[in-house]
Amino acid sequence: MQKDDMVIISVDDHISEPPDMFDKHLSGEDLATAPKFGTDANGKNYWTYQGMYMPSVGLNAVVGRPLEEYGMEPNSLEEMRKGVYNVHERINDMNVNGVAASLNFGTVVGFDGGRFHRAPDKGLALKHLRAYNDWHVDEWCGAYPGRFIPCGLLPTWDMDATVEEIKRLAAKGCTAVSLNENPTKQDLPSIHNEYWNPMYKALAENNIVTCLHIGAGNPVPHASMETPIEAWITTMPLSSSVGAADWLHLKALYEYDMKIAMSEASIGWVPYFMERADFSHSRHKYWTHNHFGGMLPSERFKKHFMLCFIDDAYGLQNLDKLNEDLVAYECDYPHSDTLWPDCPEHLWEQCKHLTDEQINKITHINAMNWFSFDPFKTQKKEELTVGALRARAKADGVDTTPTSLSGEKPLDGEERRITSGDLARMFAHHAEEGKQKAAG
Amino acid sequence: MQKDDMVIISVDDHISEPPDMFDKHLSGEDLATAPKFGTDANGKNYWTYQGMYMPSVGLNAVVGRPLEEYGMEPNSLEEMRKGVYNVHERINDMNVNGVAASLNFGTVVGFDGGRFHRAPDKGLALKHLRAYNDWHVDEWCGAYPGRFIPCGLLPTWDMDATVEEIKRLAAKGCTAVSLNENPTKQDLPSIHNEYWNPMYKALAENNIVTCLHIGAGNPVPHASMETPIEAWITTMPLSSSVGAADWLHLKALYEYDMKIAMSEASIGWVPYFMERADFSHSRHKYWTHNHFGGMLPSERFKKHFMLCFIDDAYGLQNLDKLNEDLVAYECDYPHSDTLWPDCPEHLWEQCKHLTDEQINKITHINAMNWFSFDPFKTQKKEELTVGALRARAKADGVDTTPTSLSGEKPLDGEERRITSGDLARMFAHHAEEGKQKAAG
Repeated sequence: MQKDDMVIISVDDHISEPPDMFDKHLSGEDLATAPKFGTDANGKNYWTYQGMYMPSVGLNAVVGRPLEEYGMEPNSLEEMRKGVYNVHERINDMNVNGVAASLNFGTVVGFDGGRFHRAPDKGLALKHLRAYNDWHVDEWCGAYPGRFIPCGLLPTWDMDATVEEIKRLAAKGCTAVSLNENPTKQDLPSIHNEYWNPMYKALAENNIVTCLHIGAGNPVPHASMETPIEAWITTMPLSSSVGAADWLHLKALYEYDMKIAMSEASIGWVPYFMERADFSHSRHKYWTHNHFGGMLPSERFKKHFMLCFIDDAYGLQNLDKLNEDLVAYECDYPHSDTLWPDCPEHLWEQCKHLTDEQINKITHINAMNWFSFDPFKTQKKEELTVGALRARAKADGVDTTPTSLSGEKPLDGEERRITSGDLARMFAHHAEEGKQKAAG
Repeated sequence: MQKDDMVIISVDDHISEPPDMFDKHLSGEDLATAPKFGTDANGKNYWTYQGMYMPSVGLNAVVGRPLEEYGMEPNSLEEMRKGVYNVHERINDMNVNGVAASLNFGTVVGFDGGRFHRAPDKGLALKHLRAYNDWHVDEWCGAYPGRFIPCGLLPTWDMDATVEEIKRLAAKGCTAVSLNENPTKQDLPSIHNEYWNPMYKALAENNIVTCLHIGAGNPVPHASMETPIEAWITTMPLSSSVGAADWLHLKALYEYDMKIAMSEASIGWVPYFMERADFSHSRHKYWTHNHFGGMLPSERFKKHFMLCFIDDAYGLQNLDKLNEDLVAYECDYPHSDTLWPDCPEHLWEQCKHLTDEQINKITHINAMNWFSFDPFKTQKKEELTVGALRARAKADGVDTTPTSLSGEKPLDGEERRITSGDLARMFAHHAEEGKQKAAG
């Protein structure tokens, strides 16, 4: 196998929702009360919804920008690559990067649908969440059959509506949902509470994967406001270990045979984590009364959790310590970790020591199996290889030249190290600005 | 090399301070105002100090107890092995476990001396902190030359006194101090603040290692109160990644050529962490203005950080990804992670695939070099091997039979899984009890 022969499915990418997302899926009062896209006097875009003002239309959507300009949020769709919010352009950006298929999380709605959780009128929120799912599954993913793995949101504040939405999503062919890894942060019961059993049951019965994306739940901590920003970025994926441990110790995992996907958690630290879980269990099971349904913690983890990586040589060198049937690739387009448009080159360097069978598993077969997704139903496999997709992009004239942007640059250009506090202050400034605009 | 030929130095163990710790090091009013040991009507021990009441005389000091009885705090010295607080018995417990030398952290004073930081009268706190250092270095470690690596505390709320104490400790032959990894949790400036430069300078000039023990600074998070306790225990070492990243990005690291020891952080996740730091740096250095003094983050980490492990097969299988000159062993006696009295058996299983040179480095040479500690000055090497020490313990009749304890058992004996909340509630109960007793 060569680099160009790979078929790449990315199980973690992002969309900045387009302004017209609700237009075809709602009407009348329901549409009038849906999240609204706008542009302020300075040309900055924002969304408003039920008294909330959301200026971050493209949180960290820096793809296609010179590296020197990373770290600023784009302030408008105009400042982003069109592929961030336009599905046709997205397909071009996937082609030029050799990506056959992609699973996408939302932005303004929150990775986990958190926007609807924060909305005071839950009746409206339920309607709008469903409309988001319709837009995401039918319009965005439906535009290019076989190129997207749909991933829905659930109105988990209402368990009956949640079960109903699971069935509705399943009927549409949606095989994944994105949940908050720690619902206590949304003032809902912990994942160990029986409140969730109807959802766990419905997810299992409908063979739906639960995606837990980093940053939507447990904190992503940094030591202090003076901590350099790179330190924060470095530890972000490791912070998902708190959620991984929590879900690993969930009885529903084996009672309902659940399928989890740890989105953006990476893989290199996981063999340590599993070994540590086994060690802790061996020392403490006598008084903690855990039993993992008769398995070791590591066996449970390998059975129920899909892992993915952007760039992780250490993890791929230790693939034998993981379940090679549950490791997948992710691009993280359009966030700053993405290696677009050179993903195939980086990926090939890190996995070329593996067997062809292993490379196929990691690049696409595992994602196909876990998400019950078959792109080869609608397209020939040889048309979805890195080489074939890039030839298509070339014929289509897809341009990847980095685009320099003007506009507000709150962080860069200073000859001192950027700190976690700089970023926190920028977020606080945006939040304050939002509050004032929402009030005014 | 065989198991019995190893010379084992443990760089992370603990002492529950004995009641008479201050008696030889203070007098008059200074002694009268020092932390006081007591026993309540129920036979429970406690310490009092400047209005504080500390019931946890033996936090997690469960060594020597049947595994079924883990998870309860010992409530009195009587409920612990004598080796936890008596230096002569400690030497016996080290001998029977084949441990040649050990670095010890305090308990009631806090791993990081936090007790003195919380004391309102800082003038007294300074006197008592110094007396602790005198007791620890001269009395405890001094009782058996070559068997203990002394580790002092610093009055970091006062930078002049801190520099003075560093010099005083160095003059005593103390080559390590234990600091809070995140001083902002003690209302002091972050480690990146110039406030700390005199301390960094003095530590470097006196060739003193800075020990950062897990749990004394950044949070050790668990998702919710219903999270099973094993999940919390599993992720504890990984939580040290937040501090590791913060210190890795510290300019003083290279400006003063500092020596750090990550106590109880383990090793298996670290190659991932370093690779991730390099990746983040490669993508973000253009706007973050970090430069690590001309090295890669991973190169810096390998140069300045000693790592240690209790049980970590994955890390030892990937020793080539670490700096093999800065990996050391720890017993964690008397805490629940310890494998006492079978440490040599577990250690040998995990490191026997290494070369003799590598085994010697990890078991003792690295600790000797980093802490400028030479046990062979006062004792022959062949008298400090696992085999020789165990023969000595046998001759001395050291008994390792697990001791079952009566007393309060707030957590075990229930046919349900113990949660993080159970432990948190137990701590809260103790704190409340303490407040009432301090007030009464």
